[in-house]
Amino acid sequence: MPLVTIDLIEDVFTPDQKADIIDKVTEAMIAVEGEGMRQVTWVRINDFKGGDWAIGGRRLAAKDVHALSAGKAA
Amino acid sequence: MPLVTIDLIEDVFTPDQKADIIDKVTEAMIAVEGEGMRQVTWVRINDFKGGDWAIGGRRLAAKDVHALSAGKAA
Amino acid sequence: MPLVTIDLIEDVFTPDQKADIIDKVTEAMIAVEGEGMRQVTWVRINDFKGGDWAIGGRRLAAKDVHALSAGKAA
Amino acid sequence: MPLVTIDLIEDVFTPDQKADIIDKVTEAMIAVEGEGMRQVTWVRINDFKGGDWAIGGRRLAAKDVHALSAGKAA
Amino acid sequence: MPLVTIDLIEDVFTPDQKADIIDKVTEAMIAVEGEGMRQVTWVRINDFKGGDWAIGGRRLAAKDVHALSAGKAA
Amino acid sequence: MPLVTIDLIEDVFTPDQKADIIDKVTEAMIAVEGEGMRQVTWVRINDFKGGDWAIGGRRLAAKDVHALSAGKAA
Repeated sequence: MPLVTIDLIEDVFTPDQKADIIDKVTEAMIAVEGEGMRQVTWVRINDFKGGDWAIGGRRLAAKDVHALSAGKAA
Repeated sequence: MPLVTIDLIEDVFTPDQKADIIDKVTEAMIAVEGEGMRQVTWVRINDFKGGDWAIGGRRLAAKDVHALSAGKAA
Repeated sequence: MPLVTIDLIEDVFTPDQKADIIDKVTEAMIAVEGEGMRQVTWVRINDFKGGDWAIGGRRLAAKDVHALSAGKAA
Repeated sequence: MPLVTIDLIEDVFTPDQKADIIDKVTEAMIAVEGEGMRQVTWVRINDFKGGDWAIGGRRLAAKDVHALSAGKAA
Repeated sequence: MPLVTIDLIEDVFTPDQKADIIDKVTEAMIAVEGEGMRQVTWVRINDFKGGDWAIGGRRLAAKDVHALSAGKAA
Repeated sequence: MPLVTIDLIEDVFTPDQKADIIDKVTEAMIAVEGEGMRQVTWVRINDFKGGDWAIGGRRLAAKDVHALSAGKAA
């Protein structure tokens, strides 16, 4: 059952980081629900195109999120 | 940006387990993306009613998931 | 893999009709994808509260959908 | 075609405010897409339970959002 | 909190129209919820490929939606 | 009203199979709800990129699903 959908903006994370997100989030789920539920624990990443996601009306590109991640104002 | 939506069947997990899921999944995300993105890391739990989620046509109630979790066949 | 989510307005269909929808949609999926994928074919029903779904700005209650189903103008 | 889904935390807005959100968002869509698409412009509100939506790991209740709305720190 | 997801068929709207949709829908939300919630008002556009969205079993391409918008029967 | 969203991994099914899925699922819905609701029965396919969907932490490519469909272990 548990279905986890992770919405991201494309190109914010590298393929390795995305694989790492899937791995870590899956293990976080199984840590709570128990190993018996591994085969029914589904985790997906859903990419939105840059410019198609806005916060407070300000449309974000990947570089805006990188600036945010580095601690600068969004 | 990252938005995580966790679909569950209601009453499968206790309120404490649900709080734990939100906490562990949030920290899993931040472990990859960096502490600078904490305030834009949103994690939600979305409950489906028992009987409204089917695997292979078999509708699941909370007790079926508990049996699954305990290692019995679904 | 295939995950089917069916959004409805609550109380438009009876519990028996909802079970029938899950059954028929599951079998429709398996008719195309093959029996080997039954265990990874998940079908869910997600209910919206009456008044929380609008078409062209007109918020629908269950009775509006019943009228629509009976062939009257929405 | 356009389908708009508005995820809220329950009890943050009054029923009148929710009706107002549906109305204003529908008209915003039609202002861009044209009146000819009114009948295929669907707008829905999807409520999450208080405590099931977290920002940065902090689970929000309706009162937290009200404080935020009033300009206080979340 | 409020999260708005707008599902469209790709190439129905120009990039300028999509930016306009994001802007107008964001302001519609803030008109109801108050300026204090701007930074937690997220609006996203999610594109579906032409042919992947059907009404009554009829799969729509961008040109079908343009015809609909112009007032012709879908 | 009924809105059906079918999440798939891209390239698992051919375009003909996808058209067949939309057709069969639409008719399954209408078999239960009645012909009067055809024009408000929307069915969409939403493709996830290969590698962006994991079961139990194992990320699936189209070929993994094909193996599954053929009756081999996932």
